[in-house]
Amino acid sequence: MAADSGLDHLSNGTHPITGRIITCKAAVVWGPGQPFRIEDIEVDPPKRLEVRLRILFTSICHTDLGSWIAENESQRAFPRILGHEAAGEVESVGEDVEGLVAGDKVVPVFNGECGSCRACRSEKTNLCFGYAVDPARRVMRADGAVRFFLPAAGGTCRRPIYHFLNTSTFSEYTVVDSACVVKIAGDSPPLSRLCLFSCGVSTGVGAAWNAAKVEEGSRVAVFGLGAVGLAGEEMGITDFINPKDCTKPVHEVAQGARLRGAAQIIGVDINPDKFTKGEEMGITDFINPKDCTKPVHEGWGLTVVLGVYTSPRMLPLHPMELFQRKITATVFGDFKPKSQLPNLINNYLNGEIKLNLDGLITHELPFAEINQAFKLLSEGKALRCLLTL
Amino acid sequence: MAADSGLDHLSNGTHPITGRIITCKAAVVWGPGQPFRIEDIEVDPPKRLEVRLRILFTSICHTDLGSWIAENESQRAFPRILGHEAAGEVESVGEDVEGLVAGDKVVPVFNGECGSCRACRSEKTNLCFGYAVDPARRVMRADGAVRFFLPAAGGTCRRPIYHFLNTSTFSEYTVVDSACVVKIAGDSPPLSRLCLFSCGVSTGVGAAWNAAKVEEGSRVAVFGLGAVGLAGEEMGITDFINPKDCTKPVHEVAQGARLRGAAQIIGVDINPDKFTKGEEMGITDFINPKDCTKPVHEGWGLTVVLGVYTSPRMLPLHPMELFQRKITATVFGDFKPKSQLPNLINNYLNGEIKLNLDGLITHELPFAEINQAFKLLSEGKALRCLLTL
Repeated sequence: MAADSGLDHLSNGTHPITGRIITCKAAVVWGPGQPFRIEDIEVDPPKRLEVRLRILFTSICHTDLGSWIAENESQRAFPRILGHEAAGEVESVGEDVEGLVAGDKVVPVFNGECGSCRACRSEKTNLCFGYAVDPARRVMRADGAVRFFLPAAGGTCRRPIYHFLNTSTFSEYTVVDSACVVKIAGDSPPLSRLCLFSCGVSTGVGAAWNAAKVEEGSRVAVFGLGAVGLAGEEMGITDFINPKDCTKPVHEVAQGARLRGAAQIIGVDINPDKFTKGEEMGITDFINPKDCTKPVHEGWGLTVVLGVYTSPRMLPLHPMELFQRKITATVFGDFKPKSQLPNLINNYLNGEIKLNLDGLITHELPFAEINQAFKLLSEGKALRCLLTL
Repeated sequence: MAADSGLDHLSNGTHPITGRIITCKAAVVWGPGQPFRIEDIEVDPPKRLEVRLRILFTSICHTDLGSWIAENESQRAFPRILGHEAAGEVESVGEDVEGLVAGDKVVPVFNGECGSCRACRSEKTNLCFGYAVDPARRVMRADGAVRFFLPAAGGTCRRPIYHFLNTSTFSEYTVVDSACVVKIAGDSPPLSRLCLFSCGVSTGVGAAWNAAKVEEGSRVAVFGLGAVGLAGEEMGITDFINPKDCTKPVHEVAQGARLRGAAQIIGVDINPDKFTKGEEMGITDFINPKDCTKPVHEGWGLTVVLGVYTSPRMLPLHPMELFQRKITATVFGDFKPKSQLPNLINNYLNGEIKLNLDGLITHELPFAEINQAFKLLSEGKALRCLLTL
């Protein structure tokens, strides 16, 4: 199952490694849907504009599940270290890194911000031309090589391991571009909760605030996915279902919409068992599409698609379904990570923004039990499962 | 080819006809892509909330072409009277019609406005719950019957003819819902030009103003369709091409964008021969996708899909292509026809809005030469061909 051929060049063996190699534990995936194996790996030092992080907490998002099964051919990159929602601290920095030093508390982000390209200078996008999310990317930008290796043994060279979503947080140590690291102020921020700002909370709240621009008194419908199986769910408009237990940030959206004064926040789900948690998150009404024999609402509005959709499947949209309905997609809730996330986190920490993060974390497990965490998520039993490293 | 079965009930023969039946000429289509036949037809008087119009000018839009070939199964309704872009005068009105009397100069509109439903009361849509465009509709709303007939002959009953797009303007007389009639002020408005407000100009200008909300200094790309064959063009994002000669309102969009101060208006076309007319309409740059070996622009923005798309084909969109790009569709340029079109027309007539309508009308022919007009359009040789009745 492991894809080995062609990986040798990734070890970049001809270049000297100037810093210290760290040997640590990481959860490595060897093939689509195969159990994670906790391996001893080597993490190379950061190169120019890179940062090596010590991961203290990581949680699991639907995009990890989708990439684990690798429905899309472009994701069949193994062995690989997944994970992209995390918090930790800077272990060391490469050349030319500014604003980050060892010991800084940080949140890695899968969607980076260089701060200087035309996209970063525009107010209309958060998709940096250099460091925006790219699910197909599996190596570092600096040299097209990786920083993770299985140690050399028995006369064989050490073996490269692929990166994932700019972050690869299912590892005690990881190397990321400095454009993908957000510094957290304060001496002892609650990293176990701020971990969620690394993806879910920012994506969900931002979807309501920045992408949908929910207005006071408006009506919001929050669609999730059907029972989160690992076999690849639909993201088609007609199939947006289940806001209750899935790992998409639907509760975060509900909270974001509530904070913006939405008059009605409708959760849509085909599983009536899931109609419990939503209310504490701000959902005011529920609709089970299976109970409906005709369209519920005729009308107009904006649909915001969230998340990194790794399936090759298209949206089954006919142009006439778009009459006065808009559809768009958001990455990271349209927040510019490095310039806007610190403010969002500060407002959460000082109580200005009231977000129920404890309610989102339904399970906490040690890192070694990552397979159990994936099981909980894939069975729809967990919202966010926090892994402690 | 003619679909006869099941049409008999449409003659509504059990109800007495109280007004005068008009016998006149109409261009009738008998099957997909078959030549129009100028027939003597009977036009029943208008029923409650209906208006009978005398059509003086009609022009041909791409939606007529698409419906003529009936690519979509739902459009296989023959015999039928097509046409939806026209100007004329009120011949008579049915019961309860307000604000319209015989002799009024009018523009029929395919997208109606009742003025009282929840959609009509909202500022966010122009899709009236009662009278919005419906390409599948082929009968009048009042009684589910038609107002057009081939006369009885040789002992046979008169034969019903289907309606089209709320209007059916390829006829000397037509019956439409009063919600689909816009009154023009003044004694002798230039109906041959105002005819274009019935569809193309309103759709195109409104797309730039209302749907795209083109801002001063912005960059607008106007995509048309490839060589306008009758075999069913794509409307997929990747296939939007040819802004130059097609019957989509691309020049109207360009004019609308110019009036809003766009800094750059890029016409996209695979046929370099078509790069002539655009400049007088406001297009500043041209791109031929066939000359491009890589994407021209990376970035963000809003795509507005225009027109009634009668093909059953879907848009081949992947959710990740929508990251910070929105897509929407507009009917009638998001204008509310009865409440907003009179103002637009007045502003054109008093010179406040400078639109080059003469430049859009490339051909004028007598009504009887409608087949020649369709030939010009389908060969890409005409922008708007005006038929005089």
